[in-house]
Formats: sequence, structure tokens, C-alpha cells
Amino acid sequence: MKTKILALLKDSSDYISGQELCSRFGVSRTAVWKAVNQLKKEGFEIEAVQNKGYRLTGMQKDVLGKSELETRIGTRWCGRLVYYYAQIGSTNIQAKNLAEAGAGHGTLVVADMQTEGRGRRGRMWLSPAGTNVYFTLVLKPEFEPDRAAMLTIVMALSVAQAIGEVCGVAARIKWPNDIVVNGRKVVGILTEMSAEPDYIHHVVVGVGINVGEQEFPAELQDRAASLNVETGQCVSRAALIQKSMEYFEENYELFAEAGNLSGILAVYNGLLVNRNSVVRVLDPKGEYMGTAEGINENGELLVTLEDGSSRTVYAGEVSVRGIYGYV
Amino acid sequence: MKTKILALLKDSSDYISGQELCSRFGVSRTAVWKAVNQLKKEGFEIEAVQNKGYRLTGMQKDVLGKSELETRIGTRWCGRLVYYYAQIGSTNIQAKNLAEAGAGHGTLVVADMQTEGRGRRGRMWLSPAGTNVYFTLVLKPEFEPDRAAMLTIVMALSVAQAIGEVCGVAARIKWPNDIVVNGRKVVGILTEMSAEPDYIHHVVVGVGINVGEQEFPAELQDRAASLNVETGQCVSRAALIQKSMEYFEENYELFAEAGNLSGILAVYNGLLVNRNSVVRVLDPKGEYMGTAEGINENGELLVTLEDGSSRTVYAGEVSVRGIYGYV
Repeated sequence: MKTKILALLKDSSDYISGQELCSRFGVSRTAVWKAVNQLKKEGFEIEAVQNKGYRLTGMQKDVLGKSELETRIGTRWCGRLVYYYAQIGSTNIQAKNLAEAGAGHGTLVVADMQTEGRGRRGRMWLSPAGTNVYFTLVLKPEFEPDRAAMLTIVMALSVAQAIGEVCGVAARIKWPNDIVVNGRKVVGILTEMSAEPDYIHHVVVGVGINVGEQEFPAELQDRAASLNVETGQCVSRAALIQKSMEYFEENYELFAEAGNLSGILAVYNGLLVNRNSVVRVLDPKGEYMGTAEGINENGELLVTLEDGSSRTVYAGEVSVRGIYGYV
Repeated sequence: MKTKILALLKDSSDYISGQELCSRFGVSRTAVWKAVNQLKKEGFEIEAVQNKGYRLTGMQKDVLGKSELETRIGTRWCGRLVYYYAQIGSTNIQAKNLAEAGAGHGTLVVADMQTEGRGRRGRMWLSPAGTNVYFTLVLKPEFEPDRAAMLTIVMALSVAQAIGEVCGVAARIKWPNDIVVNGRKVVGILTEMSAEPDYIHHVVVGVGINVGEQEFPAELQDRAASLNVETGQCVSRAALIQKSMEYFEENYELFAEAGNLSGILAVYNGLLVNRNSVVRVLDPKGEYMGTAEGINENGELLVTLEDGSSRTVYAGEVSVRGIYGYV
């Protein structure tokens, strides 16, 4: 009901009477009053005038919460159901638990703060409150486990597009898992799955976006950045999540229809920071250098060597480093 | 201490005095007495004679428990640490929880009964108390997720060898997940993993062996069987688990060393019930028939068609049925 009241208030420039809200939802005045108070706590400024009713006069600059997200996200399935937590251990772990308990394809888990935020291979992900975006999407795809890696690609593209639209900056993708703005990392993606060898139970795709972070540990200062610092504006976290969900739904459907990345390949490669750059491929069998051409329909990076031959680089096998002196 | 006392009693044909046990473990007589009582509850017959001490005189026919398993399993890492439950929801789920919480490579979870035993793709696995084997092995391999399917192959071979040794019957493997005796299924294997696209967090390999089951639901009667019925003897569940762990350790090391199944291929194919049989391959792109030749080093089934051409069948893509009229 809280979400529905918020939607009504957002749609109306005039006051809405408490009586109208009561009869519309079939609840008492006290129930309406409680819901309005919760919305106020979430950061919405709601005026209450006797004999007139309630009116939304504004909101704190960067409101994040279940109601705000649910009224924003206008997709068909992606992020329609939102689990929001002021604080949680890790959105990926919570998403996995919810998926085990039956949460469906497209369920979205969002937290304002993570106490045990994680990056790839168990690395830590800084997750303070009130400043960044941490969300995880639950997916229950019907394809084979070996395609799960492509979901990272689909999400990277979607978040880069969302940042581009919300912030008006060129967010570019650093294959396979990161998004950079002005050459510095603002987004990390962690995809995890629970599967039988030939059958996916569920995949969770976790995204961390540095939005309001002002300071980074010394070892990250040259490589990490935040959207507010890079754009000089106060970026809405809810808008970033909303747009990520909208782009993801669109991109995922192109992916699912084709069974591979062919439908989003051109757009992805257009945003690929490694493209046409010289990269060093840290192959365990022997390092080599080449020019990254872009990804193929399976999400592998195509690299052309000096002798004109080309190689396909799979994310799991090798690590790719940009040669910054060259680009 | 309970396990160590049991090991001492097993090794000794004579009485061991309570005093000796007290001083060896640095505990009180009451503590020794309590441990002995627990062993009795688990099914060991232990005689206590004043001024002589304790002596193991026998055991209930099919004792299963932490102490019995730990004194039996003489491997280096596989099944050295045992979590035993008289009753649990599912050994696979419990193993996953333990792995998330840090349980190491080779941790073994055994239950006498499962209240929510599961087979592949969420199917039910009948799991009554006191009669069958339900265990799950936790593995934390360092290879890529796409090799996890091969662990099913390694386990199928190990359990078939264990049954062969313990029961003296020809247990044969029905590719990829089942073991049959006299053409009827006695074992099912469920492998599940938690992974990033390029990095395995953990794999759990669950095994259910029908040992003492006398009756099956009508729809399974022709296809399912139990070891006691097929062999006409009372098979020791603890011995089956012990031997499975010993063979698994050996087979796993051959597998890990080669990075594929080449080291165990010949033995596996020798036990393969499908081998040299006509099979119908239920390929979604079109069914076809052929003769199964055995698996290759990646665990795929090689099938020769009538026209002499051969195909490689991946477990996830197709289902294989024996054509019983032909074999």
C-alpha cells in the first residue's frame, strides 16, 4: 500500500484526502497515516494539511528504498519485485538465499549498505551506507551453465547504458567485469551461479556502483572513482538502478532470443574501452601482446597479434591488461 | 575421543582398563564411561568388567555413525572429516552450507535419513532411515566450472568399484549418473556447484545407494533395486562409504593430475553398461540411434552411427536410452 500511496502522490500535483486514500485501499485513517510516516522516514517530504489531505512536496536528494524503486521501475519482469535492505551482509548472498527459497527470475535485491560486500574470488568490496549502489538480480535462465558468463556481459552493457543516460557521461566497459569513467573504475560486477553440471538452478548478478564515494584507499586512488566526483553532480542512485533494470530487460531478451550475444554485440563493442587498444594477455601458457578487436557472440575477446593472426581469449583463462603507454 | 577409544577397542582383542583410557586421554573415568555409552548407543557391543576394563565384543550388523566411519576411512584427505546426522533435510544442502561456512576439500556429510532427499533437477529421492546410504562429498577443486561434470564420472566409477569390492557383484555404470546391478538402478549421483563463471567456489557430489530397501513404488519396481535384494546378503553401509572414499581419492588424484579423465578411462569404460549397446540419443535437434563406444577423456559419450560416422554426446544436451530389445 505504501508504494501505491507514493505512486498516487507522485501523480498528483494537488492534495489527496486521507478519506480518499482510506476508501481506495479499504483501510483505516491510522493505517494511511502510518504508511505516510514510513514514506517520510524514507526521505519523501509529504505535507499533511487538515481538511485537504496529503501532498508530495519534495524528496531528499537521493532517496533509496523499496517504494521509490518500485514506483520507478517500469519493466515487465526485471526488478519488478524488490527486496530492499538498509543494511545486509551481501546482496549476492541474500539473493542466493532468496533464490533457494523460491524467489523468481528477475527478483531484485538492493541494499543501502553491505557489511560483507564481496568482489570476485572473495575479494572485499567497500560498501559504506548512503552513498553507493549495491544490487543483485536473481535469474533462472533455461540455458546451460557454460553460458552464465555471458550474463556478466549483458549486465555490464546495461549498467554502462544506464550510467550514460542518467549521468550524461561516457561510461565504457573494461572486459569482462568492470565499467570505467575517464579511465577509472566506477562499477564492478560479480556473477555467481548454483548449478548441476547441465542445469542452472539460479544465477545471481551483483553490481556495485561507486556513486558518492569521495575517498578511496591509497592503493585504489589511481584506479577507482565515483560518479559524483567524475560528473560533478549528485547522481540519483534510484535512477541508476531503474535504468539498469530497463536496459537489462531489453538486452537480456535479445540475448535469450538469439541464444548468444549477437543482438547486443555492436553496442557492447562500441562501449568497450579495450577496443582497438594494445593489450597484454596474461595467458598461463605464455604472455603475449596484441590489439583487442572486441568480443564475439560468445563473449570472448578477439585479439589480433602482430603477425596478423588472431586469438580468442576466454575470461576465465587469462587476464587482460591495457598498455596505457600505447592508448 | 570417542572415535579414538573405538579404534583402540577394535585393535585389541583383550580388555583395556578404564584407567589406561583415562591416562591416555587425560580425562576422568566418568568421561570415558560416557564415551563408551555413546558407542553402545551407536550400535557397538562393549563389555565392561570390573578390574579388567572394556572390550569390544561385537556390533549391530549395520552400524553407521561418525565414530564407525572415522575409524574405518583410512584415506589422506577424502572423507577424513565426517559430519554425521541421524536425520537431515538433504546431505547436499548441508554440504553446501558447510562449504559456504569454510568446510574444506574432502569433507564428508553422511546421514542415516533424509527428510528432503533430492535427485537431479529437484526430483525427490526416497530416503528412509536405517536402510540406505546417503552421503555428500565437499570438493574445492582449482579447475574451471566446465569440468565439474567430470566429478560425477569420477564418483560413479568410485562407487561402482566400492560396490564391486564390498558386495562381490558386478555394479555397472549407466552414463552419466547412475549405477545399476542386474540392470536395475541402485545408485544415483547428484553433483551441484557454486561458482563464478570462471572460478569454482565449491562442488558437492551427493550419492544415494539403495542398500536395504525392500519395496519400491509401483512405477519404479522394474527399474530400481537394492543391494541386499540383489546380493541376498546384508551389506554394510559403513563399508560402502569407506570404500567409496578410498576409491574416490585414488581416482580423483589421477583425474586432477591429468586434468581430464584419461587416467581412469579404461576402467570406467570397462564398467559402462551402455558400452557396445545400441542407444537412442534424444537430441533436441533430432533423435538418432547408434552404438555407444564409451566415454572420452572429457566424459562425453562416443556414439557410432549406422553409417559409420561417430558423434560426441554431452550429458547436458541429450538423454540416452538403452534399447533393451537389442542388448
